[in-house]
Amino acid sequence: MKITKIRTAVGPIASAIRNAYISFSTMTINLVAVETDVLRDGKPVVGYGFSSNGRYAQTAIIDERFIPRIMNADSADYAEEETELFDPRAVWSIFMSNEKPGGHGDRAHAAGALDMALWDVAAKVAEQPLWRLISDRFNGGKYDERVLVYPGGGYYYPGKELDGLKAEMEGYREQGYTHVKMKIGGADLALDLKRIEAVIGVVGGGKHLAVDANGRFNLNNALTYGRAMEPYGLFWYEEAGDPLDYQLNAVLGEHYSGALATGENLFSHHDGRNLLRYGGLRPDRDWIQLDPALAYGLTGYLRFLEIVDQHGWPRRRLIPHGGHQLALNMAAGLQLGGSESYPGVFQPYGGFADKIPIEGGYVRLPDEPGLGIELKPELLGEMRRLLGYE
Amino acid sequence: MKITKIRTAVGPIASAIRNAYISFSTMTINLVAVETDVLRDGKPVVGYGFSSNGRYAQTAIIDERFIPRIMNADSADYAEEETELFDPRAVWSIFMSNEKPGGHGDRAHAAGALDMALWDVAAKVAEQPLWRLISDRFNGGKYDERVLVYPGGGYYYPGKELDGLKAEMEGYREQGYTHVKMKIGGADLALDLKRIEAVIGVVGGGKHLAVDANGRFNLNNALTYGRAMEPYGLFWYEEAGDPLDYQLNAVLGEHYSGALATGENLFSHHDGRNLLRYGGLRPDRDWIQLDPALAYGLTGYLRFLEIVDQHGWPRRRLIPHGGHQLALNMAAGLQLGGSESYPGVFQPYGGFADKIPIEGGYVRLPDEPGLGIELKPELLGEMRRLLGYE
Repeated sequence: MKITKIRTAVGPIASAIRNAYISFSTMTINLVAVETDVLRDGKPVVGYGFSSNGRYAQTAIIDERFIPRIMNADSADYAEEETELFDPRAVWSIFMSNEKPGGHGDRAHAAGALDMALWDVAAKVAEQPLWRLISDRFNGGKYDERVLVYPGGGYYYPGKELDGLKAEMEGYREQGYTHVKMKIGGADLALDLKRIEAVIGVVGGGKHLAVDANGRFNLNNALTYGRAMEPYGLFWYEEAGDPLDYQLNAVLGEHYSGALATGENLFSHHDGRNLLRYGGLRPDRDWIQLDPALAYGLTGYLRFLEIVDQHGWPRRRLIPHGGHQLALNMAAGLQLGGSESYPGVFQPYGGFADKIPIEGGYVRLPDEPGLGIELKPELLGEMRRLLGYE
Repeated sequence: MKITKIRTAVGPIASAIRNAYISFSTMTINLVAVETDVLRDGKPVVGYGFSSNGRYAQTAIIDERFIPRIMNADSADYAEEETELFDPRAVWSIFMSNEKPGGHGDRAHAAGALDMALWDVAAKVAEQPLWRLISDRFNGGKYDERVLVYPGGGYYYPGKELDGLKAEMEGYREQGYTHVKMKIGGADLALDLKRIEAVIGVVGGGKHLAVDANGRFNLNNALTYGRAMEPYGLFWYEEAGDPLDYQLNAVLGEHYSGALATGENLFSHHDGRNLLRYGGLRPDRDWIQLDPALAYGLTGYLRFLEIVDQHGWPRRRLIPHGGHQLALNMAAGLQLGGSESYPGVFQPYGGFADKIPIEGGYVRLPDEPGLGIELKPELLGEMRRLLGYE
C-alpha cells in the first residue's frame, strides 16, 4: 500500500451567520484528497478530508510542509505493502516530522484536514465504516449504535431577535433534535435572557438548551451571565472566556453550579492537558469540546484521549465541536458523549449521511466503508469538482 | 496617512543547521512590504517585515485573511490624515478582527511579519529609529544605549563534535560576543556533557554559556540533565520540555537551582500569562523568551508586557528569541534583558546593522529611522527583489 498523490484545493463555505465574536462571511475551507495504489472495484482508493470551520487559508501548510514529507517517505514506513495494512498514525508522524513543538493553531487545522483524508482511506481499505474501524482499533470493539447530536446554531436575527430565533429552533425540533444550542454575548444581558427564555419555551426546558458565548466575556461578565442564567438549569454554558484562560474557567466553576463546556479552540493534547490541569473542570457535569478536525485529526484526538484517561476524565463528558462526520464516527466508535451538528450551515460540509434522519435527538451510523463523504452526494460532487476530479 | 498597498512574498532561508528537534533545510520565510501615501525625500514610505524562523508557508493567512481587512478599512480608523500620526496597533486590531480566539500558532507568525512592517512604517514616518519610538511611546522616553546579545548557535557537528563546536564558539568570541548558547539533547548525556565542558573552556566559565534542549525532554530526562549540569553554573537551561508543559517547568525549577529559560514557542500573551501563572518561574533568575515576530509582533508583545507587569515579573528577565532587529529595537526601547543574535545563520535576515560591531557582548543601536532593514544592504536588496520592487 502506497500513497501515490495528495491533492489540495480551497472551496467556499461563506455563510451569513455570525456569533458573538466573528462573522463567517468571508471564510473558505481547505480540501484534501489522498490517492493510493490500493484498488477497490478496479479503482484506486481515494480518501477525502476537509478542515473544520473557524479559520482558513491553511493549504500552503499542507502543500509546502506536510505533503513533501509524505511523498519523500518510503511507503514501508507507514504501510505493509503485501497486506494493505495501513496506519494513518505512521503517516501523521511523517508529515509532522521537523515541525517545532509548541503553539498550536492553523497548523493543527491543516493537519486535521489531511488526517481526516488518511482515516477515510484507512477505513475504505479495511472495507469498514470509520466508526467501526475506530471501535475495533481503539475501543475494544465496543461502540454506540446511535449518537446524541445537537445543532450548534441559535444565531442573532437583527430586527426579529425572538421570532427569528424561535423559528430556527422550531425547525430543529421538526428535524428530530431534542437538544439545541444558541449564541449569547452578542447582545446585552437583558436581551440575551429574553432570547434564552424564548428558546426554553420552544424546547421544553432549560435542560435541553446550551448557550455559547464564544470566548467573549471577561471574568466579571462571565460571572454576571452565570448568576443570571443559573436558575434555568441549562444543558451547558459554553466558552465564557478566552479559551486559554483556564483560571477564568476554574473561578467560574466555583460560582456557577450548572454545567460548563469549553475546548473547541484548544488545538492539541498539550492544551487539552492544561485545561484538565488548570481549568477546574468537574467530571460529574462539565463538557470538553476539542474538535478533532481542528486539532491534528483523529490521530491528535487519540493522543488527547490518553491524557483524558490519565486524568480519570469520563469519555462520556467529551462532545466534539464541528458538526462533521469525523466527530460523529469518533463519538460512536469511542463512545463519547455526543457530537455537534450543523444542519443548514457550513453546507455542504456540515451534517451527516443524507439518508439517516435524526430521531429523538440521536442519529444512527451508516454501514458503508469510510468516513461517509460518499453518503452526502452533494458534498462528494463539490469536493471532487474543486479537487479537479471532474 | 493611508496604507496604499501591501505586498507579500516568500524567500529562502534554508540552512544546513539542525537542533535537537528539527532541521532547517527546507524552510522559507514570509516577507511583507507595507506601502503608504506618506512621502519622504519625494518617495512613498515603505515598511518591511519578515517572519521569524521555525515554521513557514503562512503568506496565505496574510494574503487571504489579514490584507483584505486592512484594504477594506477606512484609513481614518488607523491614522489621522492631516498629521500623519499613525498607530500600528489600530491596524493590528483591524487585521485581527473576525479572527477566532484561542490556539496561537502560524497565525501569530503571519501577524508578526505584518506587524513588523507596520512598525517600520511608523518609525520611518516619525523619522525615528524604532527603538526610540518604542521608548517614547511605551517606556517614558527611557532606553538602553546598548543591548546584551548572544548567538543562538552551538550546533551539532557529526564526526567532529568537539572541534567543530569549539571553532564555532571561538568565532563568536572573535566577533565580540561574551555569552553564547549551544544545543543539547541531540546526543546522549555523556557526549553533551563533553560538548558543554569544551565550550566552557572556550568562553571562560559556565556563567557565559546557555544550553538549549529545544523542548525535547520528558520530565525524567529534563531532571537527569539538570542534575548533571547543575555544577556548571550555566547562564541558563532552555526549553527542557514541551513549551506548553508548564508543570514540567515548575517541577524542574524545584529541582534545578540554576536559571531556566523558556517561551520562544509560546505565541500569544494568553500563553505567556499561563507560563507566568503555572510555570513556577523564579523572578530572581529565570528568563522568558517570547519572540515578538512569532507572537503577533510588537503589538502582541506590548499586550504580553501588561501581563508581565501585572505579575510583577522584572522586564530585565525578558530576552526575546529570534535574532532579528525587531527584538533588538524592543530590548533597547523597553529596557529588556537582552536579545538573541544569529551571526551567520538565517541570512540575510539574522543579525543587526552591518556597521555596528559587537563589543564586550553588547551591541549599540543605530540612529537611522525605522527598524533597520536599510542598514543591512544585502537584506534590503534581497527583500526588494523578492517583493518585486527591483
